[in-house]
Amino acid sequence: MKAEIIAVGSELLTPDRVDTNSLFLTAELNRLGIEVTRKTVVGDDLGDLRNAFDQAMQRVELVIASGGLGPTEDDRTREAVADLLGRKLARDPAVMAKIEARFRQIGRTMSEVNARQAMVPEGADVLNNDRGTAPGLWLESRGRVVVLLPGPPHELKAMFGAQVEHRIAKLSSGVRLLARELRVAGMGESDVDQRIAPIYTRHSNVQTTILTAPGEIQVHLRAWTTDAPAAEAVLQQIQESIVLTLGEAVFTTRGESMEEVVARELTMHQATIATAESCTGGLLAERLTRISGSSAYFLGGVVSYSNTLKSAWVDVPAEIIDTRGAVSAEVAVALADGIRRRTGATLGVGITGVAGPTGGTPEKPVGTVHVAIADASGSKERMVRYPGERDRIRWQASQTALDLVRRYFLYAAQPKPSAKG
Amino acid sequence: MKAEIIAVGSELLTPDRVDTNSLFLTAELNRLGIEVTRKTVVGDDLGDLRNAFDQAMQRVELVIASGGLGPTEDDRTREAVADLLGRKLARDPAVMAKIEARFRQIGRTMSEVNARQAMVPEGADVLNNDRGTAPGLWLESRGRVVVLLPGPPHELKAMFGAQVEHRIAKLSSGVRLLARELRVAGMGESDVDQRIAPIYTRHSNVQTTILTAPGEIQVHLRAWTTDAPAAEAVLQQIQESIVLTLGEAVFTTRGESMEEVVARELTMHQATIATAESCTGGLLAERLTRISGSSAYFLGGVVSYSNTLKSAWVDVPAEIIDTRGAVSAEVAVALADGIRRRTGATLGVGITGVAGPTGGTPEKPVGTVHVAIADASGSKERMVRYPGERDRIRWQASQTALDLVRRYFLYAAQPKPSAKG
Repeated sequence: MKAEIIAVGSELLTPDRVDTNSLFLTAELNRLGIEVTRKTVVGDDLGDLRNAFDQAMQRVELVIASGGLGPTEDDRTREAVADLLGRKLARDPAVMAKIEARFRQIGRTMSEVNARQAMVPEGADVLNNDRGTAPGLWLESRGRVVVLLPGPPHELKAMFGAQVEHRIAKLSSGVRLLARELRVAGMGESDVDQRIAPIYTRHSNVQTTILTAPGEIQVHLRAWTTDAPAAEAVLQQIQESIVLTLGEAVFTTRGESMEEVVARELTMHQATIATAESCTGGLLAERLTRISGSSAYFLGGVVSYSNTLKSAWVDVPAEIIDTRGAVSAEVAVALADGIRRRTGATLGVGITGVAGPTGGTPEKPVGTVHVAIADASGSKERMVRYPGERDRIRWQASQTALDLVRRYFLYAAQPKPSAKG
Repeated sequence: MKAEIIAVGSELLTPDRVDTNSLFLTAELNRLGIEVTRKTVVGDDLGDLRNAFDQAMQRVELVIASGGLGPTEDDRTREAVADLLGRKLARDPAVMAKIEARFRQIGRTMSEVNARQAMVPEGADVLNNDRGTAPGLWLESRGRVVVLLPGPPHELKAMFGAQVEHRIAKLSSGVRLLARELRVAGMGESDVDQRIAPIYTRHSNVQTTILTAPGEIQVHLRAWTTDAPAAEAVLQQIQESIVLTLGEAVFTTRGESMEEVVARELTMHQATIATAESCTGGLLAERLTRISGSSAYFLGGVVSYSNTLKSAWVDVPAEIIDTRGAVSAEVAVALADGIRRRTGATLGVGITGVAGPTGGTPEKPVGTVHVAIADASGSKERMVRYPGERDRIRWQASQTALDLVRRYFLYAAQPKPSAKG
């Protein structure tokens, strides 16, 4: 089964906004075994809207649209589709009552303009909106299904999960899309590709895509199948071969972010962590605390931009800064060890570098970063040189620091091999 | 003049990738006075491609496509368009020579597959690619123009700037798009709309769009015009009226981010700043240091997740934490004042709150945040309750803190009025 997605709204045709609802919808449709063959972004013009729905319905059995269901004059999706399908629009008293109730609930009175949202084309099923006032609509016509969803992502996602998914599951045939994803840190895209190409090229029925994201490479494996167990076995085999080939560079096969992996390791080992950052300016602490429950392992961090604070807060000896420079392996280690001692954490992490665009020198060009990790028994340090802009350099430095923490536990978890024989 | 943009590539129909070339192209086309009325994403299927170009050419005079010009079997844009326009494809020796030269230049030999990229539809103009091997194509047919550009953004942008822009400028009439943008903090979307609607509804020739971004509301004004000076005057008048109405809630009319505005104020007043964060986990420091040159005003910050560190690092009295709780106005002020004293900064900022999803209580539900700012002469504190998820709560808390800093300078910059008379 094939589907098309239409994103409605003139703001999506400006340089300021990109439609992202279609990414969520594509993932959901793919899971249900439905391939998305086209995406269209169209403005609020009635004729354009009608034309977009008309042509999409000529090509595919399922058309899902987001946006244009609001209360204003600009919101014309309902009207365009009703007109296209030759259905009359009438005010639905039940929908009207729900909208009024929602306004009462948030302590406001409904304005007349919101009554537009209670207009329902004849024969349409109303999809209730628990998070907003715009109801969705499910229409069937000439063997085609048209689903109209509200534009705000949290409304669209909730409505899809509660009221659309099970209806579509009934429509779709037995074909399913199975997907796996491996994320790799510390290697480049071409390096990953070169090493795993001999594996994935053996399986022409599995689509392999290698994508570059900041600080990581993602390997996506996808298979459309009617025989899920057989395809799962093939995917599992490819995944295992890739993990064998790339080794510990693969940091997750479950779609986790690097900070989620690190959070899991810290929790599992009942370890705590503290950070002392310079060029990343708090990004490392921010990423560690993105995770709910991070107060269990994250004790605290300092952002010591000035050299004085590096000494005052984490006891970096001033003479090291003087002799080695603020951007040096020695300072990174002193930051890591200093913050560990000051907080009593199991692990301390230190970062110092030149994020640019200014501040580079011939010996320490923009992109030079030292990352260190320290525990009670010692420290480990890594010097890296990242290409690109300030943002990217900072992100990659934080990624390298998190990856050092991850790899620390990789070895911590593996007891040293005993003498053979 | 109207245009449509087609993004070609099956990878753009997966949940992993979104077309962003169209944002650049839209900005460029708008500058040239051309409105984008539709965007289409289509896969590598020959029939789908042909259909997408066919329908777009029926609707508008200019169709710009990106992608599908590579050397592999999957790259079919050339073929689809040649077929649609009834033009023969033939290998162009000049293009062939350029591709070979490019391979020599990067020290590799050309593989036979790259010869596909030298196939040119009859009557097409070749657009040289200085950054890659895929040449672009400019085709005219039945009063329509079709421009085919390579998919990689840096190739597309360079080619557009060097070889497409001036050709399109010749096509388009004297119509130009003029745009203004105001960003507003500390107000909701409907509140902004209600207050400025009386202004913008008076000008039907100016499109006004109100967009919600995390922690801010954006008001976009756009006017298509052949009389730029007159339209500029109207836009200026609307902008001034909005600024008068919304007052200091408007934090920029130059498209700056909140952190850029704060950076400007700190620099202008030769002030320094330091941060003590709890629930935002370093996000405030990270945003302040995103700006290149931030070391001139940002001294340092602490992320004191544990209560012990709140006392140890910034001298928050333990009895305040005990009596008022870690999430309280008093602790926010103590964090702000403590970090200011510890670092010697002009301004200290403190944030404490419940980012969730756990940790809420009936008195202090998830989303409760206290933000404080302190200088040598005193402090100011604000309690806010944000809806939404952890990410959004943290972002909005950091935005409120930055906005407090911005407003501090608003008053600092205005000398007190002298006695009238």
